[in-house]
Amino acid sequence: MPTLVMKFGGTSVATLDRIRRAAKRVGVEVAKGYDVIVIVSAMSGKTNELVGWVEETSPLFDAREYDAVVSSGENVTAGLMALILQEMDVPARSWQGWQVPLKTNSVHSAARIEEIPTDNINAKFAEGMKVAVVAGFQGVSPEGRITTLGRGGSDTTAVAFAAAFDAERCDIYTDVDGVYTTDPRIEDKARKLDKIAFEEMLELASLGAKVLQTRSVELAMRFGVRLRVLSSFEEQSDDAGTLVCPEEEIMESNVVAGVAYQRDEAKMTLISVADRPGIAAAIFVPLSDAGVNVDMIVQNISEEGRTDMTFSCPVDQVARAEKAMAEAKASGEINFHDLLADTDVAKVSVVGIGMRSHTGVAAKMFEVLSNEGINIKVITTSEIKISVLVDRKYMELAVQALHDAFELDKVG
Amino acid sequence: MPTLVMKFGGTSVATLDRIRRAAKRVGVEVAKGYDVIVIVSAMSGKTNELVGWVEETSPLFDAREYDAVVSSGENVTAGLMALILQEMDVPARSWQGWQVPLKTNSVHSAARIEEIPTDNINAKFAEGMKVAVVAGFQGVSPEGRITTLGRGGSDTTAVAFAAAFDAERCDIYTDVDGVYTTDPRIEDKARKLDKIAFEEMLELASLGAKVLQTRSVELAMRFGVRLRVLSSFEEQSDDAGTLVCPEEEIMESNVVAGVAYQRDEAKMTLISVADRPGIAAAIFVPLSDAGVNVDMIVQNISEEGRTDMTFSCPVDQVARAEKAMAEAKASGEINFHDLLADTDVAKVSVVGIGMRSHTGVAAKMFEVLSNEGINIKVITTSEIKISVLVDRKYMELAVQALHDAFELDKVG
Repeated sequence: MPTLVMKFGGTSVATLDRIRRAAKRVGVEVAKGYDVIVIVSAMSGKTNELVGWVEETSPLFDAREYDAVVSSGENVTAGLMALILQEMDVPARSWQGWQVPLKTNSVHSAARIEEIPTDNINAKFAEGMKVAVVAGFQGVSPEGRITTLGRGGSDTTAVAFAAAFDAERCDIYTDVDGVYTTDPRIEDKARKLDKIAFEEMLELASLGAKVLQTRSVELAMRFGVRLRVLSSFEEQSDDAGTLVCPEEEIMESNVVAGVAYQRDEAKMTLISVADRPGIAAAIFVPLSDAGVNVDMIVQNISEEGRTDMTFSCPVDQVARAEKAMAEAKASGEINFHDLLADTDVAKVSVVGIGMRSHTGVAAKMFEVLSNEGINIKVITTSEIKISVLVDRKYMELAVQALHDAFELDKVG
Repeated sequence: MPTLVMKFGGTSVATLDRIRRAAKRVGVEVAKGYDVIVIVSAMSGKTNELVGWVEETSPLFDAREYDAVVSSGENVTAGLMALILQEMDVPARSWQGWQVPLKTNSVHSAARIEEIPTDNINAKFAEGMKVAVVAGFQGVSPEGRITTLGRGGSDTTAVAFAAAFDAERCDIYTDVDGVYTTDPRIEDKARKLDKIAFEEMLELASLGAKVLQTRSVELAMRFGVRLRVLSSFEEQSDDAGTLVCPEEEIMESNVVAGVAYQRDEAKMTLISVADRPGIAAAIFVPLSDAGVNVDMIVQNISEEGRTDMTFSCPVDQVARAEKAMAEAKASGEINFHDLLADTDVAKVSVVGIGMRSHTGVAAKMFEVLSNEGINIKVITTSEIKISVLVDRKYMELAVQALHDAFELDKVG
């Protein structure tokens, strides 16, 4: 039997009625002849309730206990989904992480999957079970303790199961009906993409288009798992949603696939850093240790032997970054004149695998922004992405102008 | 190190504040030098929520999935309790049933404990852990699936751990401060007992004094586990609560230890049953199969070859009992003229190990009830208990009169 993995997120299983609706979708795939592995999240709100309790117990909680508590939400959904499938006469049973077992390393609350043995579940498929309902987001460590994969880890669980069971596809049911050329709340001409390449999805995910967790897309790309994102709130045809797939499967496409943004960014500039080999490490290791998620990095030479170093990070990490830099300066690790923080910026990016073969995308982007009177504060580029920092008040305008200029409302 | 088992029920862990309060009690025992095993229930209300969801999925749910869902509440409390203990600098960790592992048979939702290996937990005690917080009410089947011990199974878990770890005592923290001579809501002179014998507690528990689950008392008696019932809502001294112990430990006591009652009983009488060897089985096996909890049984010979058979059961099982009897009659298994149901009765019982050596308790009981003008409808007796069915409207009066007559407000 071909195997299909279907993943339902928290809003898709928020109530018994929604679990029933999801189960009906599963039933449709079973009727087509698939052995189905369903990955479920906790009913929405449950995980937050559990996390809230843990955080109330202690600011510095034991991650092992955090995992033991927080993983319980998925177990509930898995059992309920199995019961509802049975009620529909679909042979199903639930599996908790340790029962599969989904083996992870011991990095609690952010564990990495090491192995998913297929024999236990395959033995049940051989006995006639049609659906294995697996609690997402959780595994078991070599020490036999419960681990979790970090928030959003249910997507990663789904992709890992699809890889382990060589599934035909991994369908991610969520509260949006696919991946869009940009956020429809900002640009009403935003268009749903039928297909998008792994690389593009990766850039979009990491840029804040929160349809799929970055890690799950990376994993899908590595193992060639065809991912489909679709809505659990609409009746679905076979070609619904957006397929995330190898770029070879995408015949025609626009040079630019989408425009992404991240609203709450800050631009930090270390003025006149004493330059020497290893200075970048001396700056960014302490920032990393302090939990600052540095995104863009730009270095300008300002004068002989000194340099300006600019980086961006989320606005709410500015205080942490300032503290880390002050400490590094005090300890003599680095030397700089000043640290400037511009907390009123946003990031806007255009993404597309077509950039590899088409030149002039950057020039066009800068021209479009210039025509709108939008000043560019920082630029970074990759093979398939160009990102700029602009004043936050121009963010929507920048997204709309770029969406228009690259004609993303039209099929390429 | 001596080991102590402490069990906290649902109301004792209903909120984080209450879990903190319970953790403080645990800390007191750790400071005395005990290795402590804490058994926790789900936060009160949580199990009902989970059970409600399962029952909504299907009237005939798969008990294996029921167990997987319903057991999750205890896992949450165990993790939170461990975190709070750690925050108090008490080395603690949580254990789910499968991690211990608490091995049970495969009778889901009503599993029996088969074995509790002590090596995993003892190894951690040897490493310096002071408290093992165990999720109550759950275990793991030989097939590796989660089982539950039935509602109230946390008491049973606690006693089983006390037996397996040869604990000095098993303290059951609950919302009452001990076992009383009768229900203080009915008789305000009801007195808390310092000690009560296992046998007495068993009779009281099965008679509706719901302080401890019958099964846990049976287990404690079998393994000689000294059980203490005490309140988690009061500051506690070393001799707080009520100790349930072998009768040898009770030096002095009243002939009668307590008066128990069960309000919602029904008296069922099969009139003129055709008598023959095996007729009792022919009646009571179908009732048992139908899930009717038959309590008292009395047989009167009415005429040659025929007999009247009277039994009691909870009022809400009358319809089931009538159906089972009608079917047994239709199939020719039994033959009777009529089935009368009196649904307005209650059971009142006096219990005491002193009855073994003192005569006249029954006579005194009947006299007291007669003096109050209370008609006795059925009588059954055991070695340490006399029970009667009376009209429900007289139940409180009967309890009060008996409590007075046997001077239960005075220490014996």
